[in-house]
Amino acid sequence: MSDLLINIELHNNSSYQQQIREKLVQLIKQGTFGDKPLPSGRKMAEIIGVSRNTIVLVYESLVDEGYLVARKRSGFFVHPDFPKESCPSLVHFDPPGSSREPNWCKRMKQKPSQFTSLNKDKNWFKYPYPFIYGYINVEEFPLYQWRECSRIAESRSKLHEWVEGYIDMDDPELITQIRQQILPKRGIVAQADEILITLGTQNSLFLLASLLGGENVTFGVENPGYGEFRNIISLTQSTVKPLDIDSQGVVLGEQLQHCDYVCVTPSHQYPTTVTMTIERRKALLEQAVRDNFVLIEDDYESEVNFIEQPLPALKSFEQHGRVIYTGSLSKSLTPGIRIGYLVANKTLITELRKLRHLHYRYPPSNNQRVTALFISQGYYDSHVRRIRRAYEKKWMLMQQGIESYLKGCEIHATAGSFCFWIGLPDGITSHALVELAAQHGILVESGDSLFMQENAPKNYIRLGFSAINHDKILQGLTILGGLIEQLRLRQSGCDNPQT
Amino acid sequence: MSDLLINIELHNNSSYQQQIREKLVQLIKQGTFGDKPLPSGRKMAEIIGVSRNTIVLVYESLVDEGYLVARKRSGFFVHPDFPKESCPSLVHFDPPGSSREPNWCKRMKQKPSQFTSLNKDKNWFKYPYPFIYGYINVEEFPLYQWRECSRIAESRSKLHEWVEGYIDMDDPELITQIRQQILPKRGIVAQADEILITLGTQNSLFLLASLLGGENVTFGVENPGYGEFRNIISLTQSTVKPLDIDSQGVVLGEQLQHCDYVCVTPSHQYPTTVTMTIERRKALLEQAVRDNFVLIEDDYESEVNFIEQPLPALKSFEQHGRVIYTGSLSKSLTPGIRIGYLVANKTLITELRKLRHLHYRYPPSNNQRVTALFISQGYYDSHVRRIRRAYEKKWMLMQQGIESYLKGCEIHATAGSFCFWIGLPDGITSHALVELAAQHGILVESGDSLFMQENAPKNYIRLGFSAINHDKILQGLTILGGLIEQLRLRQSGCDNPQT
Repeated sequence: MSDLLINIELHNNSSYQQQIREKLVQLIKQGTFGDKPLPSGRKMAEIIGVSRNTIVLVYESLVDEGYLVARKRSGFFVHPDFPKESCPSLVHFDPPGSSREPNWCKRMKQKPSQFTSLNKDKNWFKYPYPFIYGYINVEEFPLYQWRECSRIAESRSKLHEWVEGYIDMDDPELITQIRQQILPKRGIVAQADEILITLGTQNSLFLLASLLGGENVTFGVENPGYGEFRNIISLTQSTVKPLDIDSQGVVLGEQLQHCDYVCVTPSHQYPTTVTMTIERRKALLEQAVRDNFVLIEDDYESEVNFIEQPLPALKSFEQHGRVIYTGSLSKSLTPGIRIGYLVANKTLITELRKLRHLHYRYPPSNNQRVTALFISQGYYDSHVRRIRRAYEKKWMLMQQGIESYLKGCEIHATAGSFCFWIGLPDGITSHALVELAAQHGILVESGDSLFMQENAPKNYIRLGFSAINHDKILQGLTILGGLIEQLRLRQSGCDNPQT
Repeated sequence: MSDLLINIELHNNSSYQQQIREKLVQLIKQGTFGDKPLPSGRKMAEIIGVSRNTIVLVYESLVDEGYLVARKRSGFFVHPDFPKESCPSLVHFDPPGSSREPNWCKRMKQKPSQFTSLNKDKNWFKYPYPFIYGYINVEEFPLYQWRECSRIAESRSKLHEWVEGYIDMDDPELITQIRQQILPKRGIVAQADEILITLGTQNSLFLLASLLGGENVTFGVENPGYGEFRNIISLTQSTVKPLDIDSQGVVLGEQLQHCDYVCVTPSHQYPTTVTMTIERRKALLEQAVRDNFVLIEDDYESEVNFIEQPLPALKSFEQHGRVIYTGSLSKSLTPGIRIGYLVANKTLITELRKLRHLHYRYPPSNNQRVTALFISQGYYDSHVRRIRRAYEKKWMLMQQGIESYLKGCEIHATAGSFCFWIGLPDGITSHALVELAAQHGILVESGDSLFMQENAPKNYIRLGFSAINHDKILQGLTILGGLIEQLRLRQSGCDNPQT
């Protein structure tokens, strides 16, 4: 902290000592110094522009008052009683409504906090039975291989390829790997200029909605579906139209007719896990041409499909440039690196690339390069094979447990998905079950927020199994089944038979 | 490529062999296989759903026709004549205007490619004298230290802290380091909930413009100034008002009166390098309260200020929550990792965080963690001290060379900036000099695109020195001086005295 800058303007209304002490107390209480020594008396005198003696007196008084402790030969430190971290602001602000402070409520043209998003419990790992979705098991992260690739990317000779950054390009190596190794597995053929690297599917959808959305534009979205996408669309002033789904995927016909865009998750519908049949895919593409809409395919959970050979992506069937494809490595590798990709017509990719430049330039070049190496070295393929095997066993256990113990529930189970979508028996709300389950160490997610608001059913839950330990699955489902039964009895007036 | 998916629907209008060959040729020409073997005959037969014999016949015919080569015990490979990379698309598309293809021009609500951005020469390193701005010298990247931090972050025990990803949080370690080690050097005191990590300054400005911009909102921007910010503001339908600057920074008074936001670069004005004086800073803050505007401070190039002690940030003077501060590590460390930060009022940060979540969730968690370690281990400080020393010498040489050799030019030189802003003698356009200089191996940048369009002067250039080698500076400036003289003579009709 030799170059700490303390912006204090000394005036003559009170003594310099007093003013400096006040400022230092403020900095101490705000945790500015952490566990590091304060600048020496000589240094601090230089920073503030007063005599060393003044500082020495201030430091001593702060020791007396318990703000500082002096350690021999190390200098002055903040007393351990004071926070190393943030604490309530002491900065003086004008009373609310004063015209000297900006009126932020009036100034903000959007209020993003109005949007509900999935409220994941950050302490999920404290539950003995975390049936949570979307968290990967850290133990499964291919640490050794990732480290190896990051070592290669960080060698002196490879450095210039990412340290300088790109302007509006992507790492050509990563584009090649996606073209040659990732997309062919989905049946997709794409040129380099038909691919854009993004910060994951959320970002792909945001870029698309920004470019294509606006007043009088309608996006059809699956209901229940990915709530964040509905939020993004609302940001662009477009209309969100909820679309019904059945056991084959999104329902065709009238409901799609006046959509400009239809957003689908054919591999595994989010969150019901339904896989769209080949017949439905073809008919959907035909309707897209007939009714002039464009499909946005979120190829959600395709890479990690286990048990069954996945169906080719919708994009692989198309002939008229009507499918925009999004994929990501978040589910298969880690969401932390934020790598996704968009595949679309060249004209569109050119404009999206330029828009991305305005938004944030490019996804970090080091992560692009390490990911490219990870794929090219064959680590990605073997990682996916490994997690497929692990999840296959877990999925089987889940299915067996759900069928045995969750009596009276409507069960949606699709081989190869990372979760099960469960309708609770009549009269039991997901909210009641989530709360009761938590008391018994079981974490389950309510499906409420995945439906668009009007008349949404309140009895769906999602059971994920990526985070829970293999050995805990059956035990957890047994308890969960008991709790559902308990709620059912309470519902039919037979609660608490002992009293 | 064991799980290659080839989406081919065999019909009866031509032989299966013919259809499969056509598809494979298409894939070969598109570089799908790269230098990897094709799937074996047995495997390919399985993929497509025909007999192995059919595939063997197709492969043999492709060898005969020079598409494939057979290598003993390794299988079939694409002939070396064929591209490993992309080539023109062979996918059949309808003729333009056909109603089966979407009309993209009509569908795109914005045309981001209309915006001009700085056209950097990606081959700058091929010039003997690259006076280019914004590229860091890869040799100066603190490779060993960065690798060490990345090794720590990638250890098994630290993994869960970034592999799981955040939801809408930031790495608390990085926030702490920015609060305790980066901001104090700028005189700024901030609480953890007053800081947001972004993907660099471009992204900070984009998030701000998205939240605060709209019709009837005016952003004042320095002219000349950061062109990308003008583009971002235009995206939000806000009004861009160009602001005059003088030798003390942005000019106060009438021109700021009807702005809702005033965007400034007080440390070193972009691109003229002018440092805003303390007096101007205070007066600007007073006018902000009086005329109810908010300041957006892009603390551009502050960290790397060498030679002089930098002035405290505008943000450090303020009392009424009227300054939004943006900083980044792009200039001091590398633009590749894309790490920046915003400091503002808590209400605003809360909404910006939520907006960021909708845009792309969070900046990659691994980069956040490695950066936090890099700062906490003291590597960042020592790196900045090291580059300051290196640039100090270069800056001195540049100043000396410019004063000696660039006769008749208007010279803007501010100690501690990474570039010099030069007005060419009357009648010489930057365009003419850039072109002539390139022929002599000298890369200089025209300032044209940094001005807002109307009546923009055409005689400014920017000379950067971060990328050019120390030993080449004086030599390059001598040649450049000669070329300016040559253009001046040509201008005044005395060109080509020998004829």
